[in-house]
Amino acid sequence: MNKKISIIGGDLRIKKLAEMLAKDGNKVYTYGLDKQENIIQCETIKELVESADIIIGPVPFSSNGKTINATFSNNEIQIEDLTKELKNKTFIAGAIRDNVYELLKNNNVEIIDILKREELSVLNSISTAEGAIQIAMEQTEITLCGSNVLILGFGRIGKVLAKMLLGIGANVYCEARKPHDLAWIQAYGYTPIDIKKLNENLNKFDVIINTIPSIVLDASNLDKLKEDCLVIDLASNPGGVDKQEIKKKNIKFVWALSLPGKVAPVTSAKYIKETIYNILEIG
Amino acid sequence: MNKKISIIGGDLRIKKLAEMLAKDGNKVYTYGLDKQENIIQCETIKELVESADIIIGPVPFSSNGKTINATFSNNEIQIEDLTKELKNKTFIAGAIRDNVYELLKNNNVEIIDILKREELSVLNSISTAEGAIQIAMEQTEITLCGSNVLILGFGRIGKVLAKMLLGIGANVYCEARKPHDLAWIQAYGYTPIDIKKLNENLNKFDVIINTIPSIVLDASNLDKLKEDCLVIDLASNPGGVDKQEIKKKNIKFVWALSLPGKVAPVTSAKYIKETIYNILEIG
Amino acid sequence: MNKKISIIGGDLRIKKLAEMLAKDGNKVYTYGLDKQENIIQCETIKELVESADIIIGPVPFSSNGKTINATFSNNEIQIEDLTKELKNKTFIAGAIRDNVYELLKNNNVEIIDILKREELSVLNSISTAEGAIQIAMEQTEITLCGSNVLILGFGRIGKVLAKMLLGIGANVYCEARKPHDLAWIQAYGYTPIDIKKLNENLNKFDVIINTIPSIVLDASNLDKLKEDCLVIDLASNPGGVDKQEIKKKNIKFVWALSLPGKVAPVTSAKYIKETIYNILEIG
Amino acid sequence: MNKKISIIGGDLRIKKLAEMLAKDGNKVYTYGLDKQENIIQCETIKELVESADIIIGPVPFSSNGKTINATFSNNEIQIEDLTKELKNKTFIAGAIRDNVYELLKNNNVEIIDILKREELSVLNSISTAEGAIQIAMEQTEITLCGSNVLILGFGRIGKVLAKMLLGIGANVYCEARKPHDLAWIQAYGYTPIDIKKLNENLNKFDVIINTIPSIVLDASNLDKLKEDCLVIDLASNPGGVDKQEIKKKNIKFVWALSLPGKVAPVTSAKYIKETIYNILEIG
Repeated sequence: MNKKISIIGGDLRIKKLAEMLAKDGNKVYTYGLDKQENIIQCETIKELVESADIIIGPVPFSSNGKTINATFSNNEIQIEDLTKELKNKTFIAGAIRDNVYELLKNNNVEIIDILKREELSVLNSISTAEGAIQIAMEQTEITLCGSNVLILGFGRIGKVLAKMLLGIGANVYCEARKPHDLAWIQAYGYTPIDIKKLNENLNKFDVIINTIPSIVLDASNLDKLKEDCLVIDLASNPGGVDKQEIKKKNIKFVWALSLPGKVAPVTSAKYIKETIYNILEIG
Repeated sequence: MNKKISIIGGDLRIKKLAEMLAKDGNKVYTYGLDKQENIIQCETIKELVESADIIIGPVPFSSNGKTINATFSNNEIQIEDLTKELKNKTFIAGAIRDNVYELLKNNNVEIIDILKREELSVLNSISTAEGAIQIAMEQTEITLCGSNVLILGFGRIGKVLAKMLLGIGANVYCEARKPHDLAWIQAYGYTPIDIKKLNENLNKFDVIINTIPSIVLDASNLDKLKEDCLVIDLASNPGGVDKQEIKKKNIKFVWALSLPGKVAPVTSAKYIKETIYNILEIG
Repeated sequence: MNKKISIIGGDLRIKKLAEMLAKDGNKVYTYGLDKQENIIQCETIKELVESADIIIGPVPFSSNGKTINATFSNNEIQIEDLTKELKNKTFIAGAIRDNVYELLKNNNVEIIDILKREELSVLNSISTAEGAIQIAMEQTEITLCGSNVLILGFGRIGKVLAKMLLGIGANVYCEARKPHDLAWIQAYGYTPIDIKKLNENLNKFDVIINTIPSIVLDASNLDKLKEDCLVIDLASNPGGVDKQEIKKKNIKFVWALSLPGKVAPVTSAKYIKETIYNILEIG
Repeated sequence: MNKKISIIGGDLRIKKLAEMLAKDGNKVYTYGLDKQENIIQCETIKELVESADIIIGPVPFSSNGKTINATFSNNEIQIEDLTKELKNKTFIAGAIRDNVYELLKNNNVEIIDILKREELSVLNSISTAEGAIQIAMEQTEITLCGSNVLILGFGRIGKVLAKMLLGIGANVYCEARKPHDLAWIQAYGYTPIDIKKLNENLNKFDVIINTIPSIVLDASNLDKLKEDCLVIDLASNPGGVDKQEIKKKNIKFVWALSLPGKVAPVTSAKYIKETIYNILEIG
């Protein structure tokens, strides 16, 4: 590949990413990451930025808007210490906030938020789906094979999850609202559940996995569940499950967020790498 | 269901549709269709239209813009003889041309072109995919199981086709242009082929099925094919294959259009019925 | 591979086999087959037999017990004209009758009936299953996807057929007698039908495919079928369907035998080749 | 179902079994199990045995050959205290040792070792396969989807495991020795690995799951593994992996035994119930 790539901060995924980029033949520079074979650790941010035209930051870039996320760094890395050096570069990171765009607006920097890349979302849904399946296996006393599983929402995660669950041998039901989503569910061989008829179907499920980021399982719906039903919510705040109600009803519940980095950091790193290659039009 | 539904003209699918609608408990009236049990054959269009608030026409409605398609009718049925009677009704048919909208513009008719319904397109892609597989089986001396099959285009038909071919045991390769489509291809377990690298990969396929309605397999690409490769084009005019070139090169080729009505008229009728129920919000 | 292999007689599959063996780098001699590139056509059986230590005959070897099956030969080839030359050789063919063993008993010939090789039976079941699916597609007005298909018998063909049909999207029901077969059917995600309860379940099937070589669908069972049910019998004489009864009841019926050679001669040739390599312990 | 069934001892699966049998309408008696709704707890073994003609013991029946396995009992239950009461009964348990047969030989008892029932072995392989997948998910930093997984042995567990892993999206390789098993592997769409060529293929796997109860992965084979390869052994003593060598080489290794009862006690109970119904020819 023969590119020069600089990486600042990051967690285990970014560390693995650095390793993979180097293995592919790129010259990789890091700052705020552990020492790794065949990778050049820079002493200063200036040195890091000057070494390459492509600068990669963590995913997400910053949790507080001030410092760059850097699991392996002993010192805090200030966002501004990076932005003042970044000029005429390509800068790639995840969940980049407005203040970073503002800081870089006069620097002629091409800023790419990798979490807005559709292909990365698709690939991450593989890891999320597998993580959800792992949780379902761990939290039940039954096999998924032969059990009745309902997926709420037929977006990216719902689609991948349905495919995998069917592959394991579950009876897969998918809830959707739009007629063409219900048609797709039918075409893929799952059982469609029109959201209008959700309530009357809820009593047969062993596992329910939600992917919709607004309350679907409210008090009335939760009343219908089997007592040993497991509910997993994959949607970010507020999620699709009324948390107070489900606790009150004593139904087994797991709210699982950010699964890709947790259950498959190496695969996540690989997907980030593939997306970077797409952005750079190499590979 | 208990609706009154009038049907004018149509082919075998519409005849089956009438039968299914009646079986579901609807009161069905026809004009220009064979006599069928439990269905009322009307003597005049006026009688047909007055009998119900929902009027269903053929799919497609007219081939020439003047008469209504009616395989089973001995006489031609003029479009204008219908439109002059249609007032304050819901009118559903397929591929309705501008002149019909024009003729009905003052009649307070709700016109619905069923071929513009996304769910029907999805469901029809099931029939198209199965028809393509049947052709591939008939036209080759190999089993699809174990053979290398390339699908050009990852739209509705491409998606369903890939799933079925994998299910039969083929080695499924899908060509796409956009990174997120390539990511989906990967997520579903097929081998992605970036269109930029299509040319260098073409020599390994036993069957190629095109779904893209613009020329993909041109002279240069066709040169790369194995001599016993079968090419099936499912895309409407001009299709994705240079017809003159493929003939010149003596490669086995089938241009297969309008498969749903041909390979599975009963299933097609069922899908039209389901879509009508969605439109009418019943079922 | 570098073996010397002689081939006598045969049909399209054996012709393709000769071609494949030559392509793999073996030196191939034929008698009673068309001229082919890179293959040596022998003038006499003596010459053919002397050229190699491995002699391959057709599959099946003879239909009448006197002459060797040879679709492409203008002249009849007498079995005895071969056997008198065969000494200290390995002889491979299909469905070899007792009289051939008798004729060769003093010739120090290793005789291998390739149709008794378990792996070839397994591989041929792929072709048979695909052929059955092709017939089902051709003979129905519905898609297999979404339809109810019953397979009678869960042996080799039943297993492969069930897998493919599920892959296409059919609702797959498998009939079996033994509890452990019913357990396997469940493990693979099909719906098990205990033969004891067959009669009460028959009214829901769109397609029934039999693989059991003794009458399962008798008059009483046939009475239960839907009027538009398609029945395909893959079992050799007497098959699993009462032929007189099904005709009387006017149910659509196809008795499909010897499918591998018909629907996929090239794949069949490849499987014969792989089996020969197993026998010779090469490849 | 309306049978009278007595149950002695047992673990969580047997407790769930009692519950399910009662739910199906049978009259259930227990001894040495927790109190459960709708189930009669007997005071003495004599009372238990006299209440029903079918007596069910734990699976396995005894770990030491003297006392009956009874997780929920405060007191030890001596095998002889049961056998002296058992006369003219049907007795069903798992892994029944010779001494029990000896003790019962004059009592006219029909003894059935449920672990010798083929259908239960098949059904348990579902739970074992799912348990192995759960372990693989937990112990790796990659997704199974897209990774290279090798299964050693194509028996019951190998078959179910291969199916599920393919369904999740892994690249599935299956090792076997016999040509017809290799043919089956091909027919099911996995990549066959002839055991003769195992050594040269080992360097590409992310996960290896063994099902063969004799050493396959010896020092020489283990040398070939990728350093981050995970090895899971599902085979009982001695297993298929040289334990000392794998420890020495610092390869991640899990020896996972008796998974059904651990990962899916409720499903295990259901399968025991189904097998009992098969034995009793009810259901």
